[in-house]
Amino acid sequence: MAKDKKQPRPKAETPKGFRDYFGADVTERRDMLDRIAAIYHRHGFDPLETSAVETVEALGKFLPDVDRPNAGVFAWQEEAVPGGGTAGDWLALRYDLTAPLARVAAQYRNDLPSPYRRYAMGPVWRNEKPGPGRFRQFYQCDADTVGSASVAADAEICAMLADALEAVGIARGDYLVRINNRKVLNGVLEAAEVREDQAEDVLRQIDKFDKVGREGVLALLTTGRLDDSGARIDGVGLTSDQAAPVLAFLEAKGADNAATLDNLAAAVGGSAIGAEGVEELRQIADMLAAMGVAEDRAVIDPSVVRGLGYYTGPVFEAELTFEILDEKGRKRQFGSVAGGGRYDGLVERFTGQKVPATGVSIGVDRLLAALRAKGLGGADSAGPVVVTVMDRDRMGDYQAMAADLRAAGIRAEVYLGNPKNFGNQLKYADKRGAPVAIIQGADEAARGVVQVKDLVLGARIAAEASVEEWKSQPAQTEVARADLVAEVRRILS
Amino acid sequence: MAKDKKQPRPKAETPKGFRDYFGADVTERRDMLDRIAAIYHRHGFDPLETSAVETVEALGKFLPDVDRPNAGVFAWQEEAVPGGGTAGDWLALRYDLTAPLARVAAQYRNDLPSPYRRYAMGPVWRNEKPGPGRFRQFYQCDADTVGSASVAADAEICAMLADALEAVGIARGDYLVRINNRKVLNGVLEAAEVREDQAEDVLRQIDKFDKVGREGVLALLTTGRLDDSGARIDGVGLTSDQAAPVLAFLEAKGADNAATLDNLAAAVGGSAIGAEGVEELRQIADMLAAMGVAEDRAVIDPSVVRGLGYYTGPVFEAELTFEILDEKGRKRQFGSVAGGGRYDGLVERFTGQKVPATGVSIGVDRLLAALRAKGLGGADSAGPVVVTVMDRDRMGDYQAMAADLRAAGIRAEVYLGNPKNFGNQLKYADKRGAPVAIIQGADEAARGVVQVKDLVLGARIAAEASVEEWKSQPAQTEVARADLVAEVRRILS
Repeated sequence: MAKDKKQPRPKAETPKGFRDYFGADVTERRDMLDRIAAIYHRHGFDPLETSAVETVEALGKFLPDVDRPNAGVFAWQEEAVPGGGTAGDWLALRYDLTAPLARVAAQYRNDLPSPYRRYAMGPVWRNEKPGPGRFRQFYQCDADTVGSASVAADAEICAMLADALEAVGIARGDYLVRINNRKVLNGVLEAAEVREDQAEDVLRQIDKFDKVGREGVLALLTTGRLDDSGARIDGVGLTSDQAAPVLAFLEAKGADNAATLDNLAAAVGGSAIGAEGVEELRQIADMLAAMGVAEDRAVIDPSVVRGLGYYTGPVFEAELTFEILDEKGRKRQFGSVAGGGRYDGLVERFTGQKVPATGVSIGVDRLLAALRAKGLGGADSAGPVVVTVMDRDRMGDYQAMAADLRAAGIRAEVYLGNPKNFGNQLKYADKRGAPVAIIQGADEAARGVVQVKDLVLGARIAAEASVEEWKSQPAQTEVARADLVAEVRRILS
Repeated sequence: MAKDKKQPRPKAETPKGFRDYFGADVTERRDMLDRIAAIYHRHGFDPLETSAVETVEALGKFLPDVDRPNAGVFAWQEEAVPGGGTAGDWLALRYDLTAPLARVAAQYRNDLPSPYRRYAMGPVWRNEKPGPGRFRQFYQCDADTVGSASVAADAEICAMLADALEAVGIARGDYLVRINNRKVLNGVLEAAEVREDQAEDVLRQIDKFDKVGREGVLALLTTGRLDDSGARIDGVGLTSDQAAPVLAFLEAKGADNAATLDNLAAAVGGSAIGAEGVEELRQIADMLAAMGVAEDRAVIDPSVVRGLGYYTGPVFEAELTFEILDEKGRKRQFGSVAGGGRYDGLVERFTGQKVPATGVSIGVDRLLAALRAKGLGGADSAGPVVVTVMDRDRMGDYQAMAADLRAAGIRAEVYLGNPKNFGNQLKYADKRGAPVAIIQGADEAARGVVQVKDLVLGARIAAEASVEEWKSQPAQTEVARADLVAEVRRILS
């Protein structure tokens, strides 16, 4: 005890930037990921679960997520004793699921099927400043095809993404997978005679298309503009003639895929790489049609610019198109919940060989938020039937009641706290979200009956009923012990 | 490129002591944990998912798992920039699921229901020397009830454990939950007038009961013995009269619970704590009977000694009783797959208050190994139907076939590698474990038919058939394109 006095008690706190998930938050996510996994599985994708820990060497400093440019990793050095690694090895928590895939694709390249379709779901860690809604551990959910240069792989992933969104409950019409192609943009830049050293700047500026619109991007590509604070932002220095095809590209979306592809063909002019990009999009459009994925589910849309700087070919993004109210009560579209595309450098770091790959990542927390906004939260959040304890010597009887309910598939538990104060038991049942409470005192036990209390109805009566109604206690029924399961089932149905 | 030459390529290797899980290894575990979760849920337990990272302060140096006494943690110090925590905070990966539960029970003590039933499933990390079958990241699966002093909580967990084992596929009769009580042992020590400073030594010696048997433990409790290498092991120094009740305790198991409880009552003599322990076991036995859990599923068994040193009341262990062949081909019982018991110090570190708790932990990898030994691996490991590519210009047709199969609930994929060498496509299908391959060349397309190849039958014919049988190609059928789904379904059924 003296020792306890000297040492201050540890703080019981989640580390900053981390969080705990309770009850329905866990099962809702699990249910959503299970549904997605079933779709991925049916498409021939195999699950892969790598360890949370990688060597820093294998991980590299390769953070593709442009939304989090300052992202760092949690890393530490192995000790000589008692750690099993060579002393001095640096280990780190994975910051995404793509870097481990790259390591696996290189490490097991002789054993894995090629092409290798895999999906992965799990937490990743970012050592960055936590903030509202920004956590240092969060879930990712990726599907990638490694080793196929065919755009059939891209088309398949777009179709699969649409299927996955419907599988979790997003109705057709409430989402849209939009598809663009980096090669088409390269063709446009070529046609516009943009110098190679300007290309990166151009990409950075068109990334603002969503925010600043056509006129804003035009200014940024040419002579620059003033931002909202009045500060001058330099332009890339293109002429208006050079900027025109870039804007034509961004605004190429027509009434249907055929019209869009015609607009793009015009925008890339005589560029070979541009023509290749348009042809890839045409093939993707054809394959989506062949798979029965109509343009109201997945569509060619050159205004998708997010990720164009990172990906090397087709780029895709899934948006939820229904409106929600933002924190200021204004209607806005829910927005993006998934993105991906084709990239070539995956395995090259390890083997020196370029391996074509394409994939998609679903924003787990955003999609969960969308499901909640749509009222599609899990049904599994229902509390258990609570069997109360009137007589602590008859614990076996109460356990038997709970066991009977469970055997009938009904979630049930016995109150295990101090049973002295019955009010506490009902408060507990309330906190548990229990739909029903079971009560059996000595009198009821002698008569072979139980009281079954409908807590949902009871709450409604408490809120609405007249004194007479309340007194008649319609929410509480006495039934024979043998009829307990049937009565509970009646109330729950 | 010059830069690439200078920097050696990183090694594509899983860090030492970590491992990757592929395909069926992931889905089998997922399926097993889902079944366990469903049982826990039905018993009123709520899921809890804490972050992988805890502050070292909250985690403490509290490693209860006696099997891994040298276990360390992976820890690192927060940087001032860009980490969001106070510079200098030490963070660590959780080493089990109990320490985070303790932190949560303290942190949210005003919000959680009391008692709080929760289950948790997920990876934990140990910074220790890796070895064969010993990994630095592994799954745990825990269920605990915090805040109930009633042994009804213990009985419930034993019953739930038996249900969980059956839910994952262990047949009744192939497992046994054995229950002991630390208080009974304390009573025996009291009855035998063992000094307090000897108690720990006694515990250490009876822990060897499984290995060295009755005579071995008798020697260890009294004057000592020679081990296999001839080295002398000191005894605790009890007299034979003192050791006798301890051995009587270890061998108290009778023909049924009633007989065992009588033996235990005799062994504890006049000890009050001993009588309390026996009474607890009697209540647990009664409650199990009330819940319909017979003694062939869960039974009082004082020979359960693992964990007696750590737990403060009831202790339980689940053993699989069927035999497997060990690495030397000898038959042996599969052994323990889960253990747990009652402990009081859970939240005390944080709040200063003793909170009673009881719980169980299932050894995920061991239970998975048991299921595999019983041939109960997941059915989900079946490979997809592979649609081969004879004509790369008709990729849309092939994608449509795969889409039709998927729409019928059949796992299917199109070959996405280079289609030039058809042999490679069949090798790929083989590597994928594909049950069926679909083939459609230009000729078949013109006639509106497809070839459906039964790869399972084909492999059997290749191994067994005569040349005539082989030539007749019974494993390959031509059907109308419209009948593709029906024909594949016929083969798979």
